[in-house]
Amino acid sequence: MEFSSKLLEEAVNEMSQLPGIGRRTALRLVLHLLKQPESQTVALSKSLVDLKTEVKFCKNCHNISDTELCEICANKSRQSEIVCVVEDIRDVMAIENTSQYRGLYHVLGGKINPMEGVGPSQLTIKSLVDKARSGEVKEIIFALSSTLEGDTTNFYIFKQLEGLDIRTSTIARGISVGDELEYADEVTLGRSITNRIPFENSLKS
Amino acid sequence: MEFSSKLLEEAVNEMSQLPGIGRRTALRLVLHLLKQPESQTVALSKSLVDLKTEVKFCKNCHNISDTELCEICANKSRQSEIVCVVEDIRDVMAIENTSQYRGLYHVLGGKINPMEGVGPSQLTIKSLVDKARSGEVKEIIFALSSTLEGDTTNFYIFKQLEGLDIRTSTIARGISVGDELEYADEVTLGRSITNRIPFENSLKS
Ligand SMILES: [Zn+2]
Ligand SMILES: [Zn+2]
Repeated sequence: MEFSSKLLEEAVNEMSQLPGIGRRTALRLVLHLLKQPESQTVALSKSLVDLKTEVKFCKNCHNISDTELCEICANKSRQSEIVCVVEDIRDVMAIENTSQYRGLYHVLGGKINPMEGVGPSQLTIKSLVDKARSGEVKEIIFALSSTLEGDTTNFYIFKQLEGLDIRTSTIARGISVGDELEYADEVTLGRSITNRIPFENSLKS
Repeated sequence: MEFSSKLLEEAVNEMSQLPGIGRRTALRLVLHLLKQPESQTVALSKSLVDLKTEVKFCKNCHNISDTELCEICANKSRQSEIVCVVEDIRDVMAIENTSQYRGLYHVLGGKINPMEGVGPSQLTIKSLVDKARSGEVKEIIFALSSTLEGDTTNFYIFKQLEGLDIRTSTIARGISVGDELEYADEVTLGRSITNRIPFENSLKS
């Protein structure tokens, strides 16, 4: 692609770094912005930089938050002894949307994936195990997607919890194996939380 | 969609203003940026704002340019008496890519589209007609996509040129009717420029 302007080329280069945005799409998006009022480009840029520089992660559950403790963790009416382990904040949003879960969360920030160089130390696993050891937690629900990486991560955490008096469960699989949680419909997802099964049982299948 | 952070919500709102980017995709893109080094977000934001605030349009052909006159118009070896009329700069890039055209361009900035409120005055048609009247132009090639709006725009310009000693042609349609120019392969597009036909002839079909 030959550009008539360095400024344009630079913008397309940066835009096409985003996942799933090829150079052609990037060019389309950038030319669209050029046709809109300057305020739109400024607002977009500012919102991205503001988020990146000012974002906080809840010190208890690692959910994205504007405060030290996220609204869910700060809510006294939630059952703090139940912790649902999820991959990222989109899963929190998906489960919250079902209105069927009243415990807290723990956002791992990914799944163990040796192929992509993601090991346990890049995730918030230590903080979860520390929380479990402190005695505040009675039940841990694994709600990772049921892929190889999800299963590996569940099992790794499960082993770390050995010897602790904590019930572990995985959400019931009404949703198909391999599917991402965030794309499940609310009813199925809500039901799979309600019908969660002990984690040990999930290993037998 | 319920967000745990206003900053996140704001970024998703702005990102999803872009065409073809729904809220779910916007969230995915924003969360991706959050995982990358801050420098990437800053570079993206800066490149968009720089483009929007510093962009120039060539005073002769309205192509995006970093200088008053774009590289094509400034190139003395190009045939300045032939002008190819295109919708936007992606079409200039597509035709330049064929290396078969040695004339200049005129970027309209869109097509006449009453349904979307785009009339002749929002496009650079007056500047094209002025250029034609000045006597510098011997041939005008219409290279708009052959949609209803493209045909309407061609015909509107054609009528404005009445009485002037200018040859008008449309690019040969090797590419299928209704297709966007920028998606045509180089060979077909190059050939359709070479085999252009007098505009009057194109009205008969
Ligand atoms: Zn929290
Ligand atoms: Zn120019």
